Amino acid sequence: MNTYTTDIDVRFRDIDAMGHVNNAVYATYIEQARTEYFRDVLDADLSALATVLASLSIDFRRPVELTDGTVSVEIDIAEMGTSSVTMTHEIRTDGEVVAEAEATLVSLDPDSGKPAPIPDEHRSDIESYHGL
Amino acid sequence: MNTYTTDIDVRFRDIDAMGHVNNAVYATYIEQARTEYFRDVLDADLSALATVLASLSIDFRRPVELTDGTVSVEIDIAEMGTSSVTMTHEIRTDGEVVAEAEATLVSLDPDSGKPAPIPDEHRSDIESYHGL
Amino acid sequence: MNTYTTDIDVRFRDIDAMGHVNNAVYATYIEQARTEYFRDVLDADLSALATVLASLSIDFRRPVELTDGTVSVEIDIAEMGTSSVTMTHEIRTDGEVVAEAEATLVSLDPDSGKPAPIPDEHRSDIESYHGL
Amino acid sequence: MNTYTTDIDVRFRDIDAMGHVNNAVYATYIEQARTEYFRDVLDADLSALATVLASLSIDFRRPVELTDGTVSVEIDIAEMGTSSVTMTHEIRTDGEVVAEAEATLVSLDPDSGKPAPIPDEHRSDIESYHGL
Repeated sequence: MNTYTTDIDVRFRDIDAMGHVNNAVYATYIEQARTEYFRDVLDADLSALATVLASLSIDFRRPVELTDGTVSVEIDIAEMGTSSVTMTHEIRTDGEVVAEAEATLVSLDPDSGKPAPIPDEHRSDIESYHGL
Repeated sequence: MNTYTTDIDVRFRDIDAMGHVNNAVYATYIEQARTEYFRDVLDADLSALATVLASLSIDFRRPVELTDGTVSVEIDIAEMGTSSVTMTHEIRTDGEVVAEAEATLVSLDPDSGKPAPIPDEHRSDIESYHGL
Repeated sequence: MNTYTTDIDVRFRDIDAMGHVNNAVYATYIEQARTEYFRDVLDADLSALATVLASLSIDFRRPVELTDGTVSVEIDIAEMGTSSVTMTHEIRTDGEVVAEAEATLVSLDPDSGKPAPIPDEHRSDIESYHGL
Repeated sequence: MNTYTTDIDVRFRDIDAMGHVNNAVYATYIEQARTEYFRDVLDADLSALATVLASLSIDFRRPVELTDGTVSVEIDIAEMGTSSVTMTHEIRTDGEVVAEAEATLVSLDPDSGKPAPIPDEHRSDIESYHGL
């Protein structure tokens, strides 16, 4: 089973008054990984898709600092239903897991805004990439 | 049982390319409510406390837009252990729940960085505020 | 001559590793003031207008801290040309100027993307509000 | 005369409701370049230095989009006085200048918080790097 991994550079602006990457920035790192996943695996533009984030949960293991330089975000597929997909994430610096996260995305009908089946080509791209 | 509620103004910068408040900004809204809770209920400065966010989960109910103007974030205490406290949050615009969230904070020993009992005065401030 | 002023709450997330409001956040405060100005004075939605920020300059007088609580941003009109308007800004905490800024906006033709005359109703709204 | 250049990846979160990199994010890109310059040229940590940003001005030439992928930020030294240094910046995507900026930094006495001479080792590192 393949996973998808991308590297993200830590910015000075990501650090908060406590001297660590701010908790909200983990959501930004995960979103950035998702953006690149959509581009690379689905050949799709996240902001053009009728997709919504339904839930996000993050477990923080240890702080990330500016000197860590880069975080890697791994995306794996935990579950794919008719209209939703749940991705799991491991965020690492230097190979060590610093956070784990889970995000559920829901495919929408662009007209009604209601949940709609994941388009077939996206489903098969995901299955084929991950060897599901 | 009392809850704590604060209002946060939505900024233009909170909106992303999809035209809604970005998912990571919900974590910022929750953090801002927590900051004000620490100031108002514990008479403490969040960034000066030896406290760390261990986990955060958010369920997104409906998008928030710039024209919503303000979100209110409610803080309730779900559980208070020896060294950790779990807060639940309801985020609303115009009285309607737009997201629900849960955050677990852990009190640390400032020297060792390991979990330490919540200071007695904070525990009693929390119990007294919420009528626990 | 009238000026337009709005108050913006300082967020924990606005503070950076140096313990002060980050320099980029001043641009966000100014943008937020501009957004409210467009809404209140021009009855217009900034993101719906064919307007672009051509330049921005900020002089930082003294740091802003979380405990300052709120900043006020004042907007005045320095110059209004055929297709551009230059706004000057004073940012204050507790009445004291903490930064001064100047921003030039250019009105665009939505089709060509080239500079176009400021719409007459916006011009007269601005003149009338500021008593120009 | 040498200039210093670094590449910064555009994030989805950098894009605003207008579909372009938000104006405040240019300040973040410039700050990130400065952070890396301090690390690479001065062997110093920006947040540990007694240095303050006195002014920043940005001229925006054309919008940057997510699909641009990366911006490069070039740092040149326009002027170095006793206690201040003025850096000029060219921000480019694919070799094309999308913004120009100027930032003036002031060296402070960490005790008094007042302007102080730039430390000799930093002055000579800057002169030597840029061939001044």
